[in-house]
Amino acid sequence: MSPDLERLREAVPLVAAIPPGSLQIKLGEAVIGGPTPGVIAGPCAVENLEQVLCTARNVKAAGAHGLRGGAFKPRSSPYSFQGLGRPALEMLAAAKIETGLFLTIEVTDQTQVELVAEYADLIQIGARNMQNFALLRAVGRTGRPVLLKRGLSATIQEWLQAAEYILAEGNRQVVLCERGIRTFETLTRNTFDVAAIPLLREITGLPVIADPSHAAGRRELVVPLARAALAAGAQGLIIEVHPQPEKALSDGPQSLNPTEFSGLMREITPLVGAVGREL
Amino acid sequence: MSPDLERLREAVPLVAAIPPGSLQIKLGEAVIGGPTPGVIAGPCAVENLEQVLCTARNVKAAGAHGLRGGAFKPRSSPYSFQGLGRPALEMLAAAKIETGLFLTIEVTDQTQVELVAEYADLIQIGARNMQNFALLRAVGRTGRPVLLKRGLSATIQEWLQAAEYILAEGNRQVVLCERGIRTFETLTRNTFDVAAIPLLREITGLPVIADPSHAAGRRELVVPLARAALAAGAQGLIIEVHPQPEKALSDGPQSLNPTEFSGLMREITPLVGAVGREL
Amino acid sequence: MSPDLERLREAVPLVAAIPPGSLQIKLGEAVIGGPTPGVIAGPCAVENLEQVLCTARNVKAAGAHGLRGGAFKPRSSPYSFQGLGRPALEMLAAAKIETGLFLTIEVTDQTQVELVAEYADLIQIGARNMQNFALLRAVGRTGRPVLLKRGLSATIQEWLQAAEYILAEGNRQVVLCERGIRTFETLTRNTFDVAAIPLLREITGLPVIADPSHAAGRRELVVPLARAALAAGAQGLIIEVHPQPEKALSDGPQSLNPTEFSGLMREITPLVGAVGREL
Amino acid sequence: MSPDLERLREAVPLVAAIPPGSLQIKLGEAVIGGPTPGVIAGPCAVENLEQVLCTARNVKAAGAHGLRGGAFKPRSSPYSFQGLGRPALEMLAAAKIETGLFLTIEVTDQTQVELVAEYADLIQIGARNMQNFALLRAVGRTGRPVLLKRGLSATIQEWLQAAEYILAEGNRQVVLCERGIRTFETLTRNTFDVAAIPLLREITGLPVIADPSHAAGRRELVVPLARAALAAGAQGLIIEVHPQPEKALSDGPQSLNPTEFSGLMREITPLVGAVGREL
Repeated sequence: MSPDLERLREAVPLVAAIPPGSLQIKLGEAVIGGPTPGVIAGPCAVENLEQVLCTARNVKAAGAHGLRGGAFKPRSSPYSFQGLGRPALEMLAAAKIETGLFLTIEVTDQTQVELVAEYADLIQIGARNMQNFALLRAVGRTGRPVLLKRGLSATIQEWLQAAEYILAEGNRQVVLCERGIRTFETLTRNTFDVAAIPLLREITGLPVIADPSHAAGRRELVVPLARAALAAGAQGLIIEVHPQPEKALSDGPQSLNPTEFSGLMREITPLVGAVGREL
Repeated sequence: MSPDLERLREAVPLVAAIPPGSLQIKLGEAVIGGPTPGVIAGPCAVENLEQVLCTARNVKAAGAHGLRGGAFKPRSSPYSFQGLGRPALEMLAAAKIETGLFLTIEVTDQTQVELVAEYADLIQIGARNMQNFALLRAVGRTGRPVLLKRGLSATIQEWLQAAEYILAEGNRQVVLCERGIRTFETLTRNTFDVAAIPLLREITGLPVIADPSHAAGRRELVVPLARAALAAGAQGLIIEVHPQPEKALSDGPQSLNPTEFSGLMREITPLVGAVGREL
Repeated sequence: MSPDLERLREAVPLVAAIPPGSLQIKLGEAVIGGPTPGVIAGPCAVENLEQVLCTARNVKAAGAHGLRGGAFKPRSSPYSFQGLGRPALEMLAAAKIETGLFLTIEVTDQTQVELVAEYADLIQIGARNMQNFALLRAVGRTGRPVLLKRGLSATIQEWLQAAEYILAEGNRQVVLCERGIRTFETLTRNTFDVAAIPLLREITGLPVIADPSHAAGRRELVVPLARAALAAGAQGLIIEVHPQPEKALSDGPQSLNPTEFSGLMREITPLVGAVGREL
Repeated sequence: MSPDLERLREAVPLVAAIPPGSLQIKLGEAVIGGPTPGVIAGPCAVENLEQVLCTARNVKAAGAHGLRGGAFKPRSSPYSFQGLGRPALEMLAAAKIETGLFLTIEVTDQTQVELVAEYADLIQIGARNMQNFALLRAVGRTGRPVLLKRGLSATIQEWLQAAEYILAEGNRQVVLCERGIRTFETLTRNTFDVAAIPLLREITGLPVIADPSHAAGRRELVVPLARAALAAGAQGLIIEVHPQPEKALSDGPQSLNPTEFSGLMREITPLVGAVGREL
């Protein structure tokens, strides 16, 4: 291993102690980190019960393993839709009961960690909170699996140090999620750093997944980025899906409708086979 | 005003409603936003009582108005020094009693906002927490003056939207602090975006100060960046000062010793006069 | 098509007039832009005849279509190896005669365009010269196919405008090459902007290839990035290969040896099939 | 000196051999690098004789030392105004004869270096050509003073290495010009890296000036950035001035009219005194 990666590994001893390929995280009946890439899909924000159930049925039918949906939304503006809060958690729970999909729910406030942990199979830390160390410690202490998104301008080292905060609480069930970094290019919402995926997998056994929706910010790029991520070694995907993207309260331009999501699942199947895995 | 600034102003109605030059924030016996630039100085982290008192006396003698000092440190690594916590608050209080300097203290955890607000005249939100919206709301509710640092890769719009979260809680006593953004240049810790200072002052009356220490990351650049900031319209400075920078538990390379800080104060005096203000 | 892409297309009328998927560029017996991805391989710099011949034979045997090799090297330092110049062109010509590989040669100086055009099947404009407009016009006038690399911090629009300079000289045989952009991340040499590939293919029929070697700057990332590029729609690859990377005069850390390159070709074969193409 | 700056100095031995503060470059009757900051002003592009003469008279009257004006414009688009070419050189010469201002003229094509050198007192290498090594060598060989702008995403090390190319031709009359770097912030055209100024002055005696017009891209920021640059140690300024900015063929939004330029000169006078220099 090169000296720069050795130094990085020394900065994150718990993260580096997990041998590449060794960690599988069980989420409901699915596993992330095993031979099958895990696919999580759903709306940016939960808007109402019908929207959640409709999306959940569709993504389940298309082959997804998990359902994502925001109850508490971290928004740049205080005047943007902030999420339905607690009722959204109940709607997600109903969708889980009906479909069997595991639930991925973001937590944005350390005082809500316990509440979210009651509902979420996989607690999400969003990009803006990657260095909210109090929140990292709090989710670490729950012992529940955590999805840790990369910060908007976080280096790979800072990202793994954020994971180290969670592991230092005795919780090593951390999934890393590449979602793009901020650069000067404005045609995409973020620049998807696909090289981070194989680099992370060389350093640690923490599973690595990709969020092509937030990286691209444009619907038509979601499928090619999803394919690129899997080809580079991603062990899963998280995709924004909305029954009617043009009416979504947030992130419409990057959301797929259920038909487009089914198309994505069909497109990635042969690719997953080609890189020696199954779906 | 140009259309892009008009659109920005519409996104932050409370921030934009404060006319440029109109808001003065009283902190102890000092004022930020008035004719005299306010100077805040002190160590990155409080290490012990002697260090705090020694620094406070020295920076007071050199002409500083406020004392900074970290009690709770947000550190990229869980293994770095995290601050002394509550005892540090008592040490800062002692220094305030002796010197009359107002206190600037960072809060990193929303459950500690009340505690920090008891001690701090100016509650600091650090760069990593600029979009920790729960924390922004909590400091907004205290009604105490807030120092809001720019995020590592935050646009000016996002920064002002973060301020808007605080104002939306009924608290308009917000000081904005430019501290450099993340770019590809590695000789400096961050790239000090000096143009942000006049741009912000065109948009809002919230006072704008500069942190040349974190921007530069190198001691020898602190004085020229401080001068540049004031020449561009900064209404204050926050400077890292440590009795023995080479022994500092954090940020030593960018800290000035008391003699260097006195030199900085002497250097900026004629410049402040030249731009039509006083010190 | 979205309004931002429409505006971009209006800025580059000649580039946008080539319908996606319509342009095939013939290079010797190979074609770039057709159903088979074109693979170009070879050393960063030509060092001696044996090195070139050895590399050419090996990459030909492994399935490459073109040979790359620098005769004139644009180096950040005037004291770095600047290339062998004219003799290197003769060595490349000898390798072409023996192997049938087409030649890709960079031109860095407008006074050498004619000379390079005598030898090169595909004239390369490097990243540092992407906005050297005099050079763009000069290669445009040769009528020879051109490989146009993206500038280190060029937006997609600026890149296509650089291509427009070539097309405006009556030469539409331009291959675009994504090679990474400059960001704050230091573990990779550049950040490979894989999203640029499908975005370009949506806008224009100019073929798009990828250079994972320069993007990564690390040997172990070349294969995963090559796979990601093809999965995202890249129509070819350009790969640095050196008989003994540890002794290379430039770019050793990112060069594959012939055995590793054969491995790369084997790895990408099923993937190319999976995305509906052949190799 | 810190180890990182020592390593940088070793990479550019000729640049580092010039002791800080030691080099004065004579340009007509003005000097750059001496106690008085040199001010260069004029239009982005020469449009006609009247425009050049009018601007020259006005900026001379306001106290400028040099006249800038583009004859050959490097434009991102082949369809943008490319400059008047040779006739513009004659117009600039006429303005020099009348006003005594020295001439700063950009060269974009190595075949025009001799021609431009006949007219220019200070030959400008623009940001897009900072790593056009053939052009750097060609201007180096003229022996004329060179204004070397920083590349759009060039590190300080790469910038000094570009200067080293010129010095290696036996020409050490190089003025460095900070003009902003490319970042994610979109409210300014570039991010003005004011810290580069004192850092460069610590490393080398090559004079350092600033271009606030291109950095800002907005007229109202030119004065504050000019003041910041001088306060940080800049030894000169280059400012875009146009008789009627709203009718300019290029860079209108960032150009000052003559009255605004006179205001700038008045504003910087006390500041220059305050930092121990004169104007």
